[in-house]
Amino acid sequence: MNEVVGTELLFKCENFQKTGAFKARGAVNVVMQLSSDIEFVVTHSSGNHGAAIAWATSLREMKSFVVVPTDASPFKRRNMERYGATLVDCGQELESRESVLEEFLRQHEATFIHPYDDARIVAGQGTVTMELLESERNLDQIWVPVGGGGLASGAILAANGNVEVVCAEPELAKDAYLSMRSGYRQPPQPPVTIADGLRSSLGELNFGILKEAKTRIALATEDSIKRAVGLVFEMMKVVIEPSAAVVVAAMLDNPSYVAKRVGVILSGGNIPYPS
Amino acid sequence: MNEVVGTELLFKCENFQKTGAFKARGAVNVVMQLSSDIEFVVTHSSGNHGAAIAWATSLREMKSFVVVPTDASPFKRRNMERYGATLVDCGQELESRESVLEEFLRQHEATFIHPYDDARIVAGQGTVTMELLESERNLDQIWVPVGGGGLASGAILAANGNVEVVCAEPELAKDAYLSMRSGYRQPPQPPVTIADGLRSSLGELNFGILKEAKTRIALATEDSIKRAVGLVFEMMKVVIEPSAAVVVAAMLDNPSYVAKRVGVILSGGNIPYPS
Repeated sequence: MNEVVGTELLFKCENFQKTGAFKARGAVNVVMQLSSDIEFVVTHSSGNHGAAIAWATSLREMKSFVVVPTDASPFKRRNMERYGATLVDCGQELESRESVLEEFLRQHEATFIHPYDDARIVAGQGTVTMELLESERNLDQIWVPVGGGGLASGAILAANGNVEVVCAEPELAKDAYLSMRSGYRQPPQPPVTIADGLRSSLGELNFGILKEAKTRIALATEDSIKRAVGLVFEMMKVVIEPSAAVVVAAMLDNPSYVAKRVGVILSGGNIPYPS
Repeated sequence: MNEVVGTELLFKCENFQKTGAFKARGAVNVVMQLSSDIEFVVTHSSGNHGAAIAWATSLREMKSFVVVPTDASPFKRRNMERYGATLVDCGQELESRESVLEEFLRQHEATFIHPYDDARIVAGQGTVTMELLESERNLDQIWVPVGGGGLASGAILAANGNVEVVCAEPELAKDAYLSMRSGYRQPPQPPVTIADGLRSSLGELNFGILKEAKTRIALATEDSIKRAVGLVFEMMKVVIEPSAAVVVAAMLDNPSYVAKRVGVILSGGNIPYPS
């Protein structure tokens, strides 16, 4: 992979994390801080945050509900259910997700945990980068995928200006790219990228952190994302999902952005075996 | 995976090894012992041993030739070539492999390295189990795949009677199973199993070591082998080839053989991304 990308890469494999993605970190950080009289937790998710909340709440014997878009990956649905979540279907649009969530909260006494626009989530996701920086002291850069921005803003806070954090985003979901260029938070794009975990748009808190750090956004085409999944499979024997492959893809699509010794956060690996 | 198999599993991931399989160990152990005036090395292989010899010889600036059956995996052919091997085609049968090899040795001054029936190879492959036993002190069993028997006999020597070594073999290539039952080394079966690295029959040296240790052979069906590749992919986010998956499959097919705390050697991961 060093030869393919043309630089020295060090991978942080959050696909090996509990529930198959970094999301376990933020979820456990929030859930462990909840008051013990809370019985029900609700969130919305395309899959990975939902599974993380399901796992974290199961550790405290709370029940979890996840509002899930109809086009969510069946594999991720099963993953959420395996960790104990009850799924609540909504449509594909942001508005339908929000209205279903509001309706749920009207009818149930449940605590809502936002998937990324929450300081406790950002702090939890930041531990990925803290661990990477603890084990590798001479990194020039850290690359992370950006969707809602929990992982990315956590990385920026953990790097604390000592190491540049570059965010990778699908060309077909480039709201973070447009937000950074315009200086204003842009709405999500239609959910067409195969990187299903990156379809949401930057959270408010997260955008503030990215903006303050003048974060560079590197875009990746869908073809490069697919190619990167295969490259990491064949050369590293490691399973990553498209939302994680975006980082490798963006390095291939933007070689001039890549520094000499790069930490690469592989965010998750929740895909079915292709057959 | 512990829940699926019903026991505590500790994996030794030789798919992450250089060249994508444990074979790098035996190859480097032999090649580093060769006299420095040797220029050419030849072996036969369905792919992983060939890539390992190619890599090891490249470290000493020797040239490698690999006699490869026509039905070898195109992915493994590319892998051998990537590490610098020159491939020499032969038919699918053992006789054709041997005659092509003999012809090659008549025409070239090259040193032949047998893929498994060689004490230096066995010693090299034994380091997999040595490392596993160094890092995990309380194992009840170690499971390894068996083809020619290099990895298996190395494991038995390394375990030295302190931990049972169970060998996993495809039902469709059960020459080791038949050899252990009959007490006599059986010929290879036709090359029909998808576990392409396990189609060869036990070496003489290797069989002697397995026989001495009264090694148990656990068989796995083709369906279980395929299922195990998918299970390890989906649950562990790790890419293993069918010859490695045989171990997980044999545990699923023979639950009564499985002890409480089991070391599992995942032998390799050289398969293309299925698409």
